[in-house]
Amino acid sequence: MFDFELLKEDKKSEARLGIIKTNHGSIDTPIFMPVGTQATVKAMTSRELKEINSQIILANTYHLYLRPGDELIKDAGGLHKFMNWDKPILTDSGGFQVFSLSDLREIKEEGVYFSSHLDGSKHFISPEKSMQIQKNLGSDIVMAFDECPPYPAEREYVENSLERTIRWAERCKKEMEKSNQALFGIIQGGVYPELRKRSVEEMKKIDFPGYSIGGLSVGEPKEEMYKMLKHTTPLLPTNKPRYLMGVGTPEDLIEGIYHGIDMFDCVMPTRIARHGQVFTSKGRITVRNAKYKDDFTPLDKNCDCHVCQNYSRGYIRHLIKRNEILGVRLTTYHNLYFMLNLAEEIRSSIRDDHFINFRYKFYQKYEI
Amino acid sequence: MFDFELLKEDKKSEARLGIIKTNHGSIDTPIFMPVGTQATVKAMTSRELKEINSQIILANTYHLYLRPGDELIKDAGGLHKFMNWDKPILTDSGGFQVFSLSDLREIKEEGVYFSSHLDGSKHFISPEKSMQIQKNLGSDIVMAFDECPPYPAEREYVENSLERTIRWAERCKKEMEKSNQALFGIIQGGVYPELRKRSVEEMKKIDFPGYSIGGLSVGEPKEEMYKMLKHTTPLLPTNKPRYLMGVGTPEDLIEGIYHGIDMFDCVMPTRIARHGQVFTSKGRITVRNAKYKDDFTPLDKNCDCHVCQNYSRGYIRHLIKRNEILGVRLTTYHNLYFMLNLAEEIRSSIRDDHFINFRYKFYQKYEI
Repeated sequence: MFDFELLKEDKKSEARLGIIKTNHGSIDTPIFMPVGTQATVKAMTSRELKEINSQIILANTYHLYLRPGDELIKDAGGLHKFMNWDKPILTDSGGFQVFSLSDLREIKEEGVYFSSHLDGSKHFISPEKSMQIQKNLGSDIVMAFDECPPYPAEREYVENSLERTIRWAERCKKEMEKSNQALFGIIQGGVYPELRKRSVEEMKKIDFPGYSIGGLSVGEPKEEMYKMLKHTTPLLPTNKPRYLMGVGTPEDLIEGIYHGIDMFDCVMPTRIARHGQVFTSKGRITVRNAKYKDDFTPLDKNCDCHVCQNYSRGYIRHLIKRNEILGVRLTTYHNLYFMLNLAEEIRSSIRDDHFINFRYKFYQKYEI
Repeated sequence: MFDFELLKEDKKSEARLGIIKTNHGSIDTPIFMPVGTQATVKAMTSRELKEINSQIILANTYHLYLRPGDELIKDAGGLHKFMNWDKPILTDSGGFQVFSLSDLREIKEEGVYFSSHLDGSKHFISPEKSMQIQKNLGSDIVMAFDECPPYPAEREYVENSLERTIRWAERCKKEMEKSNQALFGIIQGGVYPELRKRSVEEMKKIDFPGYSIGGLSVGEPKEEMYKMLKHTTPLLPTNKPRYLMGVGTPEDLIEGIYHGIDMFDCVMPTRIARHGQVFTSKGRITVRNAKYKDDFTPLDKNCDCHVCQNYSRGYIRHLIKRNEILGVRLTTYHNLYFMLNLAEEIRSSIRDDHFINFRYKFYQKYEI
């Protein structure tokens, strides 16, 4: 089961309010999805994820295929059961990771031959294989197997890659014909508006229950990304969810939503947490710095999360400096709460017709 | 405020049931105390510690004195506030760690001169200084500054050390005269029964609200430790709690209680957890081993803890192999629950007059 209901469109921007329904529950959009690469959102338990209102998480097909293996996860009863998460899961196709192995892979029409980054073992992933792996994982939302070209890339390269990605999308759809998992098509085209347009047109022809925008936030300037969004989202059907892959920061969330995006994911909140960095309503701070040594105020005075209600910057700084696991737990928990709460505040502002005002006020406080 | 009430003495062993009352709440004895060396029980939050019924935790004076510094913790409002733990805390004296720095320290009558194991900086800890640090930390139960001789050690060395430890105990008591923290005297004497006896006699003369037994579990054979306990605990006053420092395993808990001990602490449950080892009712297993790869049963089928109710061996093994923080979190949580639950079961068995039977049945299942 998969359904998207568009509840509201903002009058002063492309922002939208919606609800996605899946077999594992519903998701309010716009939404931020915490990333659980290895079948775990780093340092978090499922019940903590629920406590901070995570409605859906993402897992990585490439990593889980290699270890512990998708067959093992199938034997465990699927990814939900394996990792003790009974809400929706979205899986990527593995494509992004495979194409990142630049020297270790060879792209052919039939699929991609590559060597594992772990042990050099030989593997082959085709559109069909990616679907089979994702079937074994049993995620609610499945990504088509695409190529994500690097930035910068010549137009000719991007165009050829895009045409193959379109052919692969058809094969993915065929492979998932009888599945009750929802397959999203992926829009590529680099920073070339005409290619983005062609990608949308062809993906719409194949017809997917949702569309992902890939190939952004891969090194291009922010302005370029926003320009592409501004160009691309209006071409997409309004009655399908739109997912901006691998994005991003708090400001990216606001700008993406402004341009009509419904779903986001990024490792950034959890990754910077492990380096002792946290979001606050005034911007990012590096709490491991010496200046926070005897600062006994919360990470963010305006935050209602369990960490900010119970722990101080000075204590968290001490933990991070001592490489104590609890330090990373507390920064991770807070950063994810920050992103999920931001998404919730944005939804509320769209509901109440003051999203533009919310966006303006956010930037007044938040130093990028 | 500090009070110990002896509720019951077992008829068939030296086991006792009691209750300790402190300003931060009461503690049912016999009790196991999780260790929070750096003002954090590794990988655990305060609310998880409460969830598994931790009634008191231990923190290490030496580590906190060096970093972040006891003055900073005092400024934060004391250790309870700093680490967000509102139940009782016991601190050691720093002696054990200082004396472990064999090449970096010099023992004098006035105290110990030593170099930090971190940066080589010079320090001096005297009985008075140890008390002052522990006052800054604000723990509920404070340990006297003692020397813990290594094993093996010549009788003459142990005797001289013991006499100095007695003189130091008097100085500690004097320094704590006006404090509302409870100071425990420490029984030393190595594996020499007469020295243990002399230690008890002198410490009783000084008169403390509780007595710790130190210098055991430092490398001597288990039989030697149990022999010393059998010899020492009957010499101690029955109306004061007895704390066996740095001990131990599940079987040590049972044997210690059998010999009349009320309090235990050990890093072992949390340390082995970080190496992928867990306690089960059938003995210890190394869940990171390949044989558990596709074992989708809980760590311990007989365990009611959150981890065993929600996660499988196969999943935890996957996490540990991938160095995922969640793996260590789950094994740590389970191991501490195991120890605290064991203490609870033992208390219950003493209450119901079947401790000897409980002990017998435990060893029938549990492989050491």
